[in-house]
Amino acid sequence: MKRLAVRHRELSPVPEAGGGSLMSMVEFHDWWAERTRAGHFVVDRVPFAELGDWDFEPSTGNLGHKSGRFFTIEGLQVREGGVPTWSQPIINQPEIGILGIVVKEFDGVLHCLMQAKMEPGNVNTLQLSPTVQATRSNYMQVHRGSSTRYLEYFVGSGRGQVLVDVLQSEQGAWFWRKRNRNMVVLVTGDVPLHEDYCWLSLAQIGELSHRDNLVNMDARTVLSCIPFALPDEAGATGEDFRDALARSYRHTTEGSAEPALHSAGEILSWFTEAKTRCDWSARLTPLSATTGWSRTDDEIADDAGEHFRILGVRVEAGTREVKAWRQPLLHPRGEGHAAFLARRIRGALHLLVQARPEYGLMDMVEMAPTVHLLPGQDPSAVRERFLRDVLQVGGVKTHYDQKLSEEGGRFYHALTRYQLIEVGDEFPVEVPPNYCWMTVRQLIDLLSHGHYLNIEARSLLACIHSLC
Amino acid sequence: MKRLAVRHRELSPVPEAGGGSLMSMVEFHDWWAERTRAGHFVVDRVPFAELGDWDFEPSTGNLGHKSGRFFTIEGLQVREGGVPTWSQPIINQPEIGILGIVVKEFDGVLHCLMQAKMEPGNVNTLQLSPTVQATRSNYMQVHRGSSTRYLEYFVGSGRGQVLVDVLQSEQGAWFWRKRNRNMVVLVTGDVPLHEDYCWLSLAQIGELSHRDNLVNMDARTVLSCIPFALPDEAGATGEDFRDALARSYRHTTEGSAEPALHSAGEILSWFTEAKTRCDWSARLTPLSATTGWSRTDDEIADDAGEHFRILGVRVEAGTREVKAWRQPLLHPRGEGHAAFLARRIRGALHLLVQARPEYGLMDMVEMAPTVHLLPGQDPSAVRERFLRDVLQVGGVKTHYDQKLSEEGGRFYHALTRYQLIEVGDEFPVEVPPNYCWMTVRQLIDLLSHGHYLNIEARSLLACIHSLC
Repeated sequence: MKRLAVRHRELSPVPEAGGGSLMSMVEFHDWWAERTRAGHFVVDRVPFAELGDWDFEPSTGNLGHKSGRFFTIEGLQVREGGVPTWSQPIINQPEIGILGIVVKEFDGVLHCLMQAKMEPGNVNTLQLSPTVQATRSNYMQVHRGSSTRYLEYFVGSGRGQVLVDVLQSEQGAWFWRKRNRNMVVLVTGDVPLHEDYCWLSLAQIGELSHRDNLVNMDARTVLSCIPFALPDEAGATGEDFRDALARSYRHTTEGSAEPALHSAGEILSWFTEAKTRCDWSARLTPLSATTGWSRTDDEIADDAGEHFRILGVRVEAGTREVKAWRQPLLHPRGEGHAAFLARRIRGALHLLVQARPEYGLMDMVEMAPTVHLLPGQDPSAVRERFLRDVLQVGGVKTHYDQKLSEEGGRFYHALTRYQLIEVGDEFPVEVPPNYCWMTVRQLIDLLSHGHYLNIEARSLLACIHSLC
Repeated sequence: MKRLAVRHRELSPVPEAGGGSLMSMVEFHDWWAERTRAGHFVVDRVPFAELGDWDFEPSTGNLGHKSGRFFTIEGLQVREGGVPTWSQPIINQPEIGILGIVVKEFDGVLHCLMQAKMEPGNVNTLQLSPTVQATRSNYMQVHRGSSTRYLEYFVGSGRGQVLVDVLQSEQGAWFWRKRNRNMVVLVTGDVPLHEDYCWLSLAQIGELSHRDNLVNMDARTVLSCIPFALPDEAGATGEDFRDALARSYRHTTEGSAEPALHSAGEILSWFTEAKTRCDWSARLTPLSATTGWSRTDDEIADDAGEHFRILGVRVEAGTREVKAWRQPLLHPRGEGHAAFLARRIRGALHLLVQARPEYGLMDMVEMAPTVHLLPGQDPSAVRERFLRDVLQVGGVKTHYDQKLSEEGGRFYHALTRYQLIEVGDEFPVEVPPNYCWMTVRQLIDLLSHGHYLNIEARSLLACIHSLC
């Protein structure tokens, strides 16, 4: 498989990645099959009454852990112009966890220390995960399990050189203002390799992102934040799409011979404007105060059966810090669909970015894929006809189309179809006010800061990196 | 008065400011005295029962307007490690207002259209304000007053060229996650001048910021966001402080001959780390659920009398959109104190920035002045001895020291002493983890984004601009 080397020009001490890998893909898949066989993981649904330390708080109906840690299931109330318009259960997890990848150079090639990790909500149990994926409760050992492996590379005096360190949001439809600390640290010394971990080059991870449900959500968000820079010769292949994509990575807004359609200032102003258009506000309420949702012994679900349900599981695992536990999970009804439309403008691929309000986001609006249908919504829910047509008829070419999983530690069987669809010159450059054309470089630049790109946009960006 | 021209290199269409002004300072003060005489403004305290359309919601005790608009006084509950530790009343204003300054070039000099504006909480009634200072309720005309003057330069098809457009926070001790849209627009056509407005150059506004309680908080936050750039010859005065200050404006982190002490990446990682150290969470609760606060007919106050009280006022005005209204205000007990310590490092002035948690901030922590004492706190509240000593004994020189007002539309007689104190080489460069040395340029670069610099840091930055 031909794949361009990904260099890290902007991370000065990071060497160029290219050349060989530590482990062939055949060896990877053998290792993966072996980890799957070795793992012991049983997930059973249980009624709420059998959730052990999890219980409903009598006065609010909120579902929480007796330690006061981890997360709670509470209610969300939305008001528009002062009038209540929507309520739902929502996961409240105020703690900031770490999603971290250790990177190290082997024979001149940058490798990521990736983990074969089981999560109770995964459709396929095992997915490729960051080196460290730990809530504060986990790594402060509230659950009294063993300490988080490799955490010492991210916190404390012995940590590696920090390449990425930014708080990023998660699903605004299901989480209340959640954010995690996305980190990448570069290490130089020996790193002992535990059997659940392996070193993979960025190119190899890119290749694996073309398989369904393998690279997990936490790995995707961290990978998206790496400030990729392509070498000058990248894209000089004569393939139009690859050339336009390479130019999209190099496109700086200012002082460039072929500037992007919009300057960085115009993009920030467009984003500010989108927030001011929101005439709603959301707040936490007691779970028992949500309307249109009912609780049985087994689940909390919307009466129409359209959105999601909260259920309880009992987990037995042989490869986690804790051997057995119980917890609630959020089970969406059906699959989500997130697609970036891409069009060549001034020779560079531009992505059509949506300013998307979501009730659980910290600041109301983040930048999202062109189209995002929540599980249960179908394409007719897309208001704009010119977008609906592309979803139904297709564009010039679909360059990426995979089903990937959302976080299996909080969501049960939550899958999203991710697409990158190229559209042709007949597709309008003028778009409605909640959309904006941006280059890949402009999105990458915003990823130094939190609360710009939402989790689905970051997931897709990680997939786009794999197309270079 | 000798003052360097302030150029806007990064705002390409903005010409160099320098040379003459439209109005002399003598003419300004004559106009100001005349506006003061012309204004009719009476503010009387009234008991809550006489607040008209404002009332306490029976089930929560929250104080709100019957339209559901403007703002509410609610309760804030803080928990640390799951345990309730602090509660207080807090102002909840989810709407995003506009704070906007129209700028225009006259004879090669950039001028700002400033307003002589009365606010009920001002100690001196009239303060110098942005062109537009309007909540969404104001400009959507919920109060059925006349439309907001000059608003058309900021919204809609006729707006000027947008130079600044960013959401910035306000006081995290008193507001629940408030933010306003800070805007600067450049216009070229004729702008009719209403009698409450005047054109002032940036240098003139800088001069006026050396008077107590004249340039209001909203003007300061907008002015701080202007991406100032100094000309290359600035600072070549032989005066050590001015030279070091000018270098602080030019100091870029990357590729500079004399780099700043910390790179941009290190600063962002330091800031992320500070947020993850917070082990508290805050949420809105019913006002009646706050503990340690009591409500009488006239006020809501903390039982210890240390923090602030909520009171009601009746206002009669001749120069506002609405002629008379009633509203609650927050009255802090005593004066606040905010100081940046500054030290020359590698030839450039560095400011000692504090990562300061505040319960009402959207993302828990923002960058603040080195020291910030809330009204009622005295210097002994500063934990770090090396900072307490400077506050009490003084540094090498105090370059700025004025009392300025906080927002008179929500706060009653809220004053803060703002200082810029230079410290000498004996002051440590190594500082505790919640502090970081940064150049002025590094702070300015962060102001393109919201939720980095808090309101007091932005106020001080606007004052520092006036020292160039």
